[in-house]
Amino acid sequence: MKDVISTILNHRSIRHFEDKPLTDEQIHTIVSCAQAAATSSFIQSYSIIGVKDKNKKKKLAELSGNQEYVEKNGHFFVFCADLYRHTLIGEKEQKNLNPSLESTEKFMVALIDTALAAQNAAIAAESLGLGICYIGGIRNNLEDVKELLNIPDRVIPLFGLAVGYPALITDKKPRLPFEHVYHEDEYEQNMEHFYHQLDEYDQLISDYYKTRTNGQRKDRWTEQMANMLSKQNRMYMKEFIQKNKLDLH
Amino acid sequence: MKDVISTILNHRSIRHFEDKPLTDEQIHTIVSCAQAAATSSFIQSYSIIGVKDKNKKKKLAELSGNQEYVEKNGHFFVFCADLYRHTLIGEKEQKNLNPSLESTEKFMVALIDTALAAQNAAIAAESLGLGICYIGGIRNNLEDVKELLNIPDRVIPLFGLAVGYPALITDKKPRLPFEHVYHEDEYEQNMEHFYHQLDEYDQLISDYYKTRTNGQRKDRWTEQMANMLSKQNRMYMKEFIQKNKLDLH
Repeated sequence: MKDVISTILNHRSIRHFEDKPLTDEQIHTIVSCAQAAATSSFIQSYSIIGVKDKNKKKKLAELSGNQEYVEKNGHFFVFCADLYRHTLIGEKEQKNLNPSLESTEKFMVALIDTALAAQNAAIAAESLGLGICYIGGIRNNLEDVKELLNIPDRVIPLFGLAVGYPALITDKKPRLPFEHVYHEDEYEQNMEHFYHQLDEYDQLISDYYKTRTNGQRKDRWTEQMANMLSKQNRMYMKEFIQKNKLDLH
Repeated sequence: MKDVISTILNHRSIRHFEDKPLTDEQIHTIVSCAQAAATSSFIQSYSIIGVKDKNKKKKLAELSGNQEYVEKNGHFFVFCADLYRHTLIGEKEQKNLNPSLESTEKFMVALIDTALAAQNAAIAAESLGLGICYIGGIRNNLEDVKELLNIPDRVIPLFGLAVGYPALITDKKPRLPFEHVYHEDEYEQNMEHFYHQLDEYDQLISDYYKTRTNGQRKDRWTEQMANMLSKQNRMYMKEFIQKNKLDLH
């Protein structure tokens, strides 16, 4: 039995798994935990696709930028924001739900719902002694992911979750300073504090990389973020989402 | 010490709290757990505002549609998707990050990041014997919420999280059938199964309400969803998000 707080604080992404599949019972527990998460107005606007088929996993790994751990793990889940179900409910109940389902508000609800469910799944898996890694890389090419998994309109695969028995456990990465993320009563906009906190954190992250790479790598966090964000990535997304009849107005 | 799986499966929303504030240590633990969640490319694109000020809590309760438990709880957190920090990092590192920060992809990343962090906070709080309730109602009027909490551009308050000592514990609501939410290897689109599962679930939910309201209420889930979604709600959201220089292209 694992303590909740220590399970949560002990999280690190696992990218090397043993060649040992999860049992159906483990999968059932993980998905049931996902479903137990809060959901906005009881809408339950997500679906989860578990991928066992080896060819599909191989293809997903390619589509995600050749990430080996998408193919080699104990189980691979694809978490999808899902308003297709509610589209069919509109037909069943003979009501026009489209203006609502096409709104930015409901797009946000579906994303949040899916992520809350996924984090429950992640924590549940970790409490079972398994490791996890979120795979945003499936968003590199969502058209192909949708085709591969036969996914209808108004269902957006948001990320994968690779789960399995850890073969290599890495270090935890230090997070932003508590005071930088947590504000009281209002959003603090004191720029002196802001940059001071970032400078301290930059040093911490630089030291973290230096120690772990024998000095090969020593990038600061703000440098890393600026490099990452100066590249334009997945810029097809707006068109893709709107083609799926979501986030239109 | 509480077991992770049973904590997760035991979740229900709490809407009546004792008049007993959380300690700073509890708040620190909950926020640290939030920060331990996975974050896309290490971007950490969220902030959390804890509201202690009584007038602000009262005002937030009004803005959320007069929900009393927004005012009366042990602590009230506002979870915000935050790309303001990265806007300033662009200035610091002298790189133009705007096309990236304005993209739908990064808007999605920020929402997902925030929700993963929030769910860690929720589970951590529940493991401490506290109850929680997510408050989507703060999205009723985000202009006023932003002004009240002095929130800059590119920071979107997504939801509140009321936390406290439960004064009234309600029943768990049954979720959609496992098979309806979890698919294997592809998204199942067998309409016969689909409607059959929904019919069974409708009966379950109808019975759930009947038992708990002495027959006063007996709505089916699909009926509830169709009614909720046939009303257009928070339709200002797209304009608001884009005014905040997010989800533009």
